Amino acid sequence: MFPKNAWYVACMPDEINDKPLGRTICNEKIAFYRGEEGRVAAVEDFCPHRGAQLSLGSVCEGKLVCGYHGLVMGCDGKTVSMPGQRVQGFPKIRSYPVIERYGFVWVWPGDAALADPAKLHHLEWAESPEWTYAGGLYHVDCDYRLMVDNLMDLTHETYVHTTSIGQKEIDESPVNTKTEGDHVITSRFMENVMPPPFWKANLRGNHLADDVPVDRWQVCHFYPPSHIMIEVGVAHAGQGGYHADPKVKVSSIVVDFLTPETETSMWYFWGMARNFNVKDTNLTAQIRDGQAKVFAEDTEVLEAQQRNLLKYPERKLLMLNIDAGGVQSRRVIDRLVAAERPEKLAA
Amino acid sequence: MFPKNAWYVACMPDEINDKPLGRTICNEKIAFYRGEEGRVAAVEDFCPHRGAQLSLGSVCEGKLVCGYHGLVMGCDGKTVSMPGQRVQGFPKIRSYPVIERYGFVWVWPGDAALADPAKLHHLEWAESPEWTYAGGLYHVDCDYRLMVDNLMDLTHETYVHTTSIGQKEIDESPVNTKTEGDHVITSRFMENVMPPPFWKANLRGNHLADDVPVDRWQVCHFYPPSHIMIEVGVAHAGQGGYHADPKVKVSSIVVDFLTPETETSMWYFWGMARNFNVKDTNLTAQIRDGQAKVFAEDTEVLEAQQRNLLKYPERKLLMLNIDAGGVQSRRVIDRLVAAERPEKLAA
Amino acid sequence: MFPKNAWYVACMPDEINDKPLGRTICNEKIAFYRGEEGRVAAVEDFCPHRGAQLSLGSVCEGKLVCGYHGLVMGCDGKTVSMPGQRVQGFPKIRSYPVIERYGFVWVWPGDAALADPAKLHHLEWAESPEWTYAGGLYHVDCDYRLMVDNLMDLTHETYVHTTSIGQKEIDESPVNTKTEGDHVITSRFMENVMPPPFWKANLRGNHLADDVPVDRWQVCHFYPPSHIMIEVGVAHAGQGGYHADPKVKVSSIVVDFLTPETETSMWYFWGMARNFNVKDTNLTAQIRDGQAKVFAEDTEVLEAQQRNLLKYPERKLLMLNIDAGGVQSRRVIDRLVAAERPEKLAA
Repeated sequence: MFPKNAWYVACMPDEINDKPLGRTICNEKIAFYRGEEGRVAAVEDFCPHRGAQLSLGSVCEGKLVCGYHGLVMGCDGKTVSMPGQRVQGFPKIRSYPVIERYGFVWVWPGDAALADPAKLHHLEWAESPEWTYAGGLYHVDCDYRLMVDNLMDLTHETYVHTTSIGQKEIDESPVNTKTEGDHVITSRFMENVMPPPFWKANLRGNHLADDVPVDRWQVCHFYPPSHIMIEVGVAHAGQGGYHADPKVKVSSIVVDFLTPETETSMWYFWGMARNFNVKDTNLTAQIRDGQAKVFAEDTEVLEAQQRNLLKYPERKLLMLNIDAGGVQSRRVIDRLVAAERPEKLAA
Repeated sequence: MFPKNAWYVACMPDEINDKPLGRTICNEKIAFYRGEEGRVAAVEDFCPHRGAQLSLGSVCEGKLVCGYHGLVMGCDGKTVSMPGQRVQGFPKIRSYPVIERYGFVWVWPGDAALADPAKLHHLEWAESPEWTYAGGLYHVDCDYRLMVDNLMDLTHETYVHTTSIGQKEIDESPVNTKTEGDHVITSRFMENVMPPPFWKANLRGNHLADDVPVDRWQVCHFYPPSHIMIEVGVAHAGQGGYHADPKVKVSSIVVDFLTPETETSMWYFWGMARNFNVKDTNLTAQIRDGQAKVFAEDTEVLEAQQRNLLKYPERKLLMLNIDAGGVQSRRVIDRLVAAERPEKLAA
Repeated sequence: MFPKNAWYVACMPDEINDKPLGRTICNEKIAFYRGEEGRVAAVEDFCPHRGAQLSLGSVCEGKLVCGYHGLVMGCDGKTVSMPGQRVQGFPKIRSYPVIERYGFVWVWPGDAALADPAKLHHLEWAESPEWTYAGGLYHVDCDYRLMVDNLMDLTHETYVHTTSIGQKEIDESPVNTKTEGDHVITSRFMENVMPPPFWKANLRGNHLADDVPVDRWQVCHFYPPSHIMIEVGVAHAGQGGYHADPKVKVSSIVVDFLTPETETSMWYFWGMARNFNVKDTNLTAQIRDGQAKVFAEDTEVLEAQQRNLLKYPERKLLMLNIDAGGVQSRRVIDRLVAAERPEKLAA
């Protein structure tokens, strides 16, 4: 269950630099490629001639050429030409609005007429030279909403990520959740705690003492359709925490774009944006490697959870206070999906 | 089709020494672990909070701790505690009666109220210092009843196990099958035959001549729900066979616990108990390696048979005299399954 | 959708030299083996005793012996004997007409009463010392009719086989298709073109200059049920092309036997018969390796096409002039399948 009238991250720009990419998003099989002047384009991954997979073809002078019989497809889904054929009567295939921005390729899998670039989620850090970003992509066999739950309740860090970012004090600190329109925020603040290994490493990465107590924070933001940005960081204790001077803290944004593939599988674009010591590429690589391990731990837990839910579909799950972030985010999703039902769109 | 009100072998004790084990038995997803004082425990592998797989968690002070959000589960299926939560109203999950005995962990996947430890199948050899045991575990993609058929008719040894225990004289010797209550016995005696390779090796293992004729016996015992013990052995010919003096024979018990996983897959706990030269660990290892090869041969045959039966479900199979052991054992199983139907239990 | 009353290639002779072979053909699970005097035989791969897979057994004195309990199966599907059993009442299993000829084993998966060896497709080149043949076998996850389409329209060579046999002039040359009874012919002739890499190598293999223009031809022949023979070759330009003197050309026959496994999978027996430099075994190996690469390229395209068609079953495909070969071949197939419907057979 996912809204289709929304901008989702489809792929990383370098996934389509050399050749087209076939990827299923929101149950749509889509061929992504770079068209004229390198602009990204996306059409159904289905050649109107004989149903070949267009993404197995090549790009020639900005057009997607089917790798079976050379049909030339335009980025609007209309066949441009085919050797020896008149193509005016060929059926049109769907094309998908697509935008390359902020270091990602975004696609709108729903009604193209409603696709407004202004609706694209704004990412300040992606446009600022004071920030840097690195991340990766995992395919996960679970409903993307299980990942929403996961990321909007970081209590799990204590148990799932015991050797990196987990610590007992997470459990012991109250969590606060609120909803502002379609924006859900869950926050947790820990004062005067020892930093766990991941944060010790980041403190050292910013040339700060790592063996002293810190104030730690986690502020999770859910934005539709399923983008989750988590402000995280630690500051030397008693210096203002979240608001402390940059000289005594390390802070960053955990970036999670959750893109449904099918009802029970998803593409997980994960990474971290940071604004300290941004030119240290070794530090960047170290953070990315650490995150890769952390998110692989989540993947194992969520895929097992998905199998359990498929085996016992009738069981009700609990909704505790710690689950409020996921619950409220799912309500936003439910509302968006309901608004896309035919009778709603006609109204 | 399997009775659920019965003790099945669930796992080997060392499978749960370091961490919990998730295993499906009779279609039930179960988490096995060592609770207080190392006592085995078993609960549904489904956290009542969000459906996570409990067996991915850890054991802390004898309690199973969910690896997602730290819910602490008691061995009775009641939530003990959860950080920051009142758990009294949490739904109970199932717990399963479980016993560690005879070097195995046993589970009762049916109605816990009916689970009587006295109903556990008694294994004399497992408690005697004059015997030793070694074995292994295979996952087999077939209905466990195909394995019952297989083990209650050893005619197949001639064809499936040609290089180890098979010999032409098996075919040529009559088989006798009888049922005593729920206990089915199939026996075959061969006189004055040359021992096949597996038995030659055992004769040598017991410091007996291996190049002389022997009397060989096979007495297969089926006990509910699906335990099969096969008395096997050879004695130098003319010395009394099955009843010969231990000094002129080698005898042992092939131990087969067949535990259904689903309708078409099973856990196969196989091994051999012997009472000759029991301290010779090299001999023990050699026998286990030989059995591993033999039972892998069965597995290939039975998985192919299962695929055939699934493709042609309407076909009737033959029930010959050699199949009597399997046929009579299946009748016992049918009777036990029928007795578990709701209307029977209510009566 | 495939006719069953037809001779299909079942396997290569050496696939059954050492032991039986189990293979599904037209949805029938069949055990192939060498019976008396090495003659090929084929019966259902289902033992009438307990449903074991007969092809896992062995051949003893020309009879197939079940590897489970030693049932001896005759090549007519009647049980010959079984140790200790009377077998007269055993149910008969199907046997399949089978012929070894032309270096292939052929099977008739339909009504045995209609199997006429005279209906076997005649292969002149297979009986002539002036020709040699080499080939291979691929399992392909697609409806065999997608492969018919592929082979009856070689336009795709330009796009799928860019580094071996593809060249732009294929596209630019008109194609001619005609049907003579159940025989469909699609032909294309290119004049005064440079030979692509595969043909350069063949020219050199026949001690001819490879850096001069050639006339190139492709004449595709579809014969029921799904045999496709493609006359291909190049001659030095202006010497008569297809009809040129053998001293200035290289010509051969691409041999494609398409045998359905299920509705959406097939066995692809591919190869090349040639009548130049036939004793050069290095050349033979080089051609076979080249073809292996070419047909692997087709396989990738067709399996992706099949997945697309399964996901979007309601979509109509285009039938262009270049598709005429496939379209007309499918009409022949449709007619043969229709003729096999019960009401037709009864008429």
